[in-house]
Amino acid sequence: MSKRYDIAIIGSGPAGLSAAINAKIRNKDAIIFGNKELSYKLSKAPKINNYLGFFDITGSQLKKAFKNHIEAMDINITEEKVNAVYAMGDYFAIMVNEKSYESKAIVIATGMEHSKPIRGEEEFLGRGVGYCATCDAPLYKGKVVTVIGYNKEAEEDANFVSELASKVYYIPMYRDKYGLNKSIEVVEDKPMEILGENLVNKLVLKNKEINTDGVFVLKDSVSPEQLVPGLEMEEGHIKVDKNMKTSIEGCFAAGDCTGKPYQYIKSAGEGQVAALNAVSYLNSKK
Amino acid sequence: MSKRYDIAIIGSGPAGLSAAINAKIRNKDAIIFGNKELSYKLSKAPKINNYLGFFDITGSQLKKAFKNHIEAMDINITEEKVNAVYAMGDYFAIMVNEKSYESKAIVIATGMEHSKPIRGEEEFLGRGVGYCATCDAPLYKGKVVTVIGYNKEAEEDANFVSELASKVYYIPMYRDKYGLNKSIEVVEDKPMEILGENLVNKLVLKNKEINTDGVFVLKDSVSPEQLVPGLEMEEGHIKVDKNMKTSIEGCFAAGDCTGKPYQYIKSAGEGQVAALNAVSYLNSKK
Ligand SMILES: Cc1cc2nc3c(=O)[nH]c(=O)nc-3n(C[C@H](O)[C@H](O)[C@H](O)COP(=O)(O)OP(=O)(O)OC[C@H]3O[C@@H](n4cnc5c(N)ncnc54)[C@H](O)[C@@H]3O)c2cc1C
Ligand SMILES: Cc1cc2nc3c(=O)[nH]c(=O)nc-3n(C[C@H](O)[C@H](O)[C@H](O)COP(=O)(O)OP(=O)(O)OC[C@H]3O[C@@H](n4cnc5c(N)ncnc54)[C@H](O)[C@@H]3O)c2cc1C
Repeated sequence: MSKRYDIAIIGSGPAGLSAAINAKIRNKDAIIFGNKELSYKLSKAPKINNYLGFFDITGSQLKKAFKNHIEAMDINITEEKVNAVYAMGDYFAIMVNEKSYESKAIVIATGMEHSKPIRGEEEFLGRGVGYCATCDAPLYKGKVVTVIGYNKEAEEDANFVSELASKVYYIPMYRDKYGLNKSIEVVEDKPMEILGENLVNKLVLKNKEINTDGVFVLKDSVSPEQLVPGLEMEEGHIKVDKNMKTSIEGCFAAGDCTGKPYQYIKSAGEGQVAALNAVSYLNSKK
Repeated sequence: MSKRYDIAIIGSGPAGLSAAINAKIRNKDAIIFGNKELSYKLSKAPKINNYLGFFDITGSQLKKAFKNHIEAMDINITEEKVNAVYAMGDYFAIMVNEKSYESKAIVIATGMEHSKPIRGEEEFLGRGVGYCATCDAPLYKGKVVTVIGYNKEAEEDANFVSELASKVYYIPMYRDKYGLNKSIEVVEDKPMEILGENLVNKLVLKNKEINTDGVFVLKDSVSPEQLVPGLEMEEGHIKVDKNMKTSIEGCFAAGDCTGKPYQYIKSAGEGQVAALNAVSYLNSKK
C-alpha cells in the first residue's frame, strides 16, 4: 500500500508555498507538487511593491526570499505535474505521469492559466483534443497524434505517447533544446485551428497543415474542473467559502484559482487559511 | 467644508498597512488611522515563521520591515483613535476625539480585542457603562465618572471628561507616567465588577470600592458594532463576502476583525483585497 500523506498541495506559487509552511508548522505530513522555479509569474515580475514587508523588489528577489523560507523549513517541492485528483471518499488519489500518490486532504493552488484556447480546442475537447497525454494515450494506439507543448515537461508526455502512436508531431510553444524520441517530428510553427467532423482530423498551423487523429494541448496548468472532477466552479474560478473549503469535503483551494484580485499576498494569505482549515479537517477526523 | 478622502483605513496592523500600500499604488488619496507602533500584536511576537518570505524573525523585525515599506511609499499613520464611523449615504463621517474626518470609502482593520469584559460591563452597557468618553461625556455633567484606561490615549479622554464631571477617577491598566489633569484621582487597582440597580452606581476594585455614576472602559479597540453602527456581524466578527465587502455599501473590512485564523499574512492578504475592492467601488461611482 502506498504512503498516505496528510495534505497534498498542488502548485508551488505563493498560495501553495504558504500552505506548505503552515502545514509544516502544524506538524502535518504534507507533499507539495510544482516546480523548483516556484512560479514563472513570480520570477517574471519586473517590480513588486505590494507585498507588505518587501518594497521595490524584483520577482526573482521575492522568489529567492520564498526559496530561502521553504529551504530553511526543509520543505521540498516534488517536481511533478498533477494530471488529476480523484476524491475516493476518505482519501484522495493524485495522478501524476505513470505514478500516483495518496493524501487525506488536498489544497489546490494551481494559479490561473490565461492563455486563450486554440480555435476548435474547446469544440473538440474529448473528441480528439485532450489535456492529459498519459491518461488518454491508449486511445491513440496505432494512430497519428500531435502534441502542442507549452513547456519542457510536455516532451516526456510526447515520448510516452510515441511508444503507442504510429506517428507523433511535436509543436513546441517555447524555445529550448528538445529531449524527444527520434521518431517524433518537431514542427516549429504556430497552431491556428483544430478541424474535424465528428472527431478531430486536422491541425492548421500558420504555415502548414497536419493530418492528425488527436491533439494534446499540454499547458502549465489544467483547469480545475479537469484536475478535480466534480469540483464546483463559480464564474471561472473554484467556488470556496471563507475557510477556503471547496464543494468537495477535504478539498481546499487558494490563490488565483479561487478568484480575483490576482496578487501574491492575497494568494499567500489564502494558502495559509486553506492549510489551517485542512489541519482542522484532519484533526476532526481523528 | 472639510477635505474628503477617497479611502479611510482604520487600524495600523498588517491588514491596515496592506490596504494602505495597495490604495496608494492605485493612486487613491487614503488616510490610515492607528499608531506609529503599528500593532502591539506585531511588536510583541517572540518568533514568526509563517509569514511567507520571512523565516525565523521576531515581531519587532517584521514591524521594522513593514515600517520601511510604508515609509518608502510616503505613507503616514494618523495617530488618532477612531471612536465612531457613520455612514452618511454618499460618504462616511469618521469621529475622533474632538475632530472628524470624511471619506468616500472605509476599510475597517481594527483587529480583535481579546480582553474579557469586566463583570457587569455588558449588563450595564448604555446604562452607565460606555466606550466613548468624548461622545458620552455630556451625560455626566456634574456627576462622578470612572475611567478604566487600557492605554495612554485614554488619559486624554479622562481629561476631557474631567472638564464636565464633578469628579473623575482614573484606573490605569498599564504602567507609565500619567499626563492627567490635577483634579483626576488615579486609583492603581484591579477592576472586579460593575454594580448598580437600574443604572451603574458602584465599581468594585480588588482592594476598594468606588461610588460612581458612570464607568468608561477605554480599550485599544472598540467593537466593530460600536465603531460602525449598523454593521452586520456573524459569530463575533464583521460579516464580509469574498471581496471583503461588509453589509454597508462602501465599507470594507480585513484582518482579525473578519474572522479566524488570526494571522499576519491572512490579514495582509485581506487588506489588499479590501483596498482593491474599495478602489473598484470608487471607480464605479465616478
Ligand atoms: C509578469 C507578472 C507580474 C506580476 N506582478 C505582480 C505584482 O507586482 N504584485 C502582485 O501581487 N502580483 C503580481 N502578479 C500576479 C501574481 O503573479 C499572481 O497573482 C500569483 O503568482 C498567484 O499565485 P498562485 O500561488 O495562486 O499561483 P501561481 O503563482 O500561478 O503558481 C501556481 C503554480 O502551480 C503550478 N501548477 C499548476 N498546475 C499544476 C499541476 N497540475 N501540477 C503541479 N503544479 C502545477 C504552476 O506551474 C505554478 O508554478 C504578476 C503576474 C505576472 C505574470
Ligand atoms: C504575542 C502574539 C504573537 C503572535 N504571533 C503570530 C505569529 O507568529 N504569526 C501570525 O501569523 N500571527 C501571530 N499573531 C497574531 C497576529 O498578531 C494577528 O493575527 C494580526 O496582528 C492581526 O492583524 P490586524 O491587522 O487584523 O490587526 P492588529 O494587528 O490587531 O492591528 C490593529 C491595529 O488597529 C488599531 N486600532 C484598533 N481600533 C482602532 C481605532 N478605533 N482607531 C484607530 N486605531 C485602531 C490597533 O491599535 C492596532 O494597532 C500573534 C499575536 C500575538 C498577540
